[in-house]
Amino acid sequence: MTLIGARLAHVAPGDVVIEMPVRAELEQQHGYVHAGACWSIADSAAGYASQTLMGPDDGVLTVELKINLLAPAGGDLLRAHGRVERAGRSLMVARSDVFAVDGGTERHVATTLGTFMVMPGLKDRT
Amino acid sequence: MTLIGARLAHVAPGDVVIEMPVRAELEQQHGYVHAGACWSIADSAAGYASQTLMGPDDGVLTVELKINLLAPAGGDLLRAHGRVERAGRSLMVARSDVFAVDGGTERHVATTLGTFMVMPGLKDRT
Amino acid sequence: MTLIGARLAHVAPGDVVIEMPVRAELEQQHGYVHAGACWSIADSAAGYASQTLMGPDDGVLTVELKINLLAPAGGDLLRAHGRVERAGRSLMVARSDVFAVDGGTERHVATTLGTFMVMPGLKDRT
Amino acid sequence: MTLIGARLAHVAPGDVVIEMPVRAELEQQHGYVHAGACWSIADSAAGYASQTLMGPDDGVLTVELKINLLAPAGGDLLRAHGRVERAGRSLMVARSDVFAVDGGTERHVATTLGTFMVMPGLKDRT
Repeated sequence: MTLIGARLAHVAPGDVVIEMPVRAELEQQHGYVHAGACWSIADSAAGYASQTLMGPDDGVLTVELKINLLAPAGGDLLRAHGRVERAGRSLMVARSDVFAVDGGTERHVATTLGTFMVMPGLKDRT
Repeated sequence: MTLIGARLAHVAPGDVVIEMPVRAELEQQHGYVHAGACWSIADSAAGYASQTLMGPDDGVLTVELKINLLAPAGGDLLRAHGRVERAGRSLMVARSDVFAVDGGTERHVATTLGTFMVMPGLKDRT
Repeated sequence: MTLIGARLAHVAPGDVVIEMPVRAELEQQHGYVHAGACWSIADSAAGYASQTLMGPDDGVLTVELKINLLAPAGGDLLRAHGRVERAGRSLMVARSDVFAVDGGTERHVATTLGTFMVMPGLKDRT
Repeated sequence: MTLIGARLAHVAPGDVVIEMPVRAELEQQHGYVHAGACWSIADSAAGYASQTLMGPDDGVLTVELKINLLAPAGGDLLRAHGRVERAGRSLMVARSDVFAVDGGTERHVATTLGTFMVMPGLKDRT
């Protein structure tokens, strides 16, 4: 779940915001952020949101994640908002939305829906 | 998009609610509604929400839809709430949530994310 | 998992084919099969394929299933071919393809990818 | 679609294999490849496979992609095999499988299903 350069901007039970400055190495040739970076921050936001509803020693594993890419992602910062839709004993269903922040404007660039598995006692492994 | 027995309970631009009474033929052997019926009403809600943002003669086609089944669906009524996440010229991205209504209680039984295609001039065909 | 009117045409470990005659009540107004019926047979094929790799008393539960609708489904028969991609201890990942059979011709009408949960000792409940 | 360090290992109509050596910067703290890198190579393989069935000047855009992560990805090399399931005039449906190659052994680590859009005349933009 570690994403170098990203930081937790908001953490509440089942609701997490992650922000990641856009660095040159995340950009493809046209100045947009690689879709894989969008997927990663979206996965992290939904996964962390899931983890807030697990036990303190539980790890989280992404079972699957579907992403719809809505617009090219550019700007200064990517912001991902993850929310849990259903918290089960062994599985969590969560979604996330990614926004590209450029100066004062925010653009919705991706939306996801995914499934996460509770890994009892494996917090440090994931 | 026609779903026999369903009715539009709310229609606003990009935001639609559909309700469908639970009939015996939609139930499987344990009294729960078939997951295929959940998928259908979820698809209809997201598809209709997409269509509200199209031209008056445009039809809508489901390209793909992912559903997470959250809980068994039972009760008197299924209610599906569809919302458009992004309206494009040729494609719409929409999500929907399905609730099982039993007396005065409502239970979140499914959530979806999907892609819908604008079919210019084909409103009566879909 | 029961789908009235469907029959198992082929069963091997992790590989199942289901066939369902197209009946009038599955058709929408243009003579095509409802997408919800496609989803149901696709879900059943992938779910049964998953169950062949579980213990004899285990039930199977659909966690999530994504379907891409490729072409309108019509004809005499829907045939769904489900295959397991990975068999885990608690989760199975499976895909399925749906074909519309009309006389001697077969048309690929849907493809899916989904996640199924092992329900130990709950074979009769699902 | 460019993925630094990746190479096309096989190209046939609707069928593409991409290989990417595992570099240190793609690894997370436990020596496994970041899931975002798996998503990227899977997206590239399915997207390139789609592009082989388009016109010579057409670009390809990922509309959406669902990935199931099957096992941790490690080893020397990631190999992704993309295949088109249906080629339409404006949309392509494609899937891909990712394998982690370690010495002589190959492990299936991810499977995907996605939708790609034909971008007429925009080959250099994507």
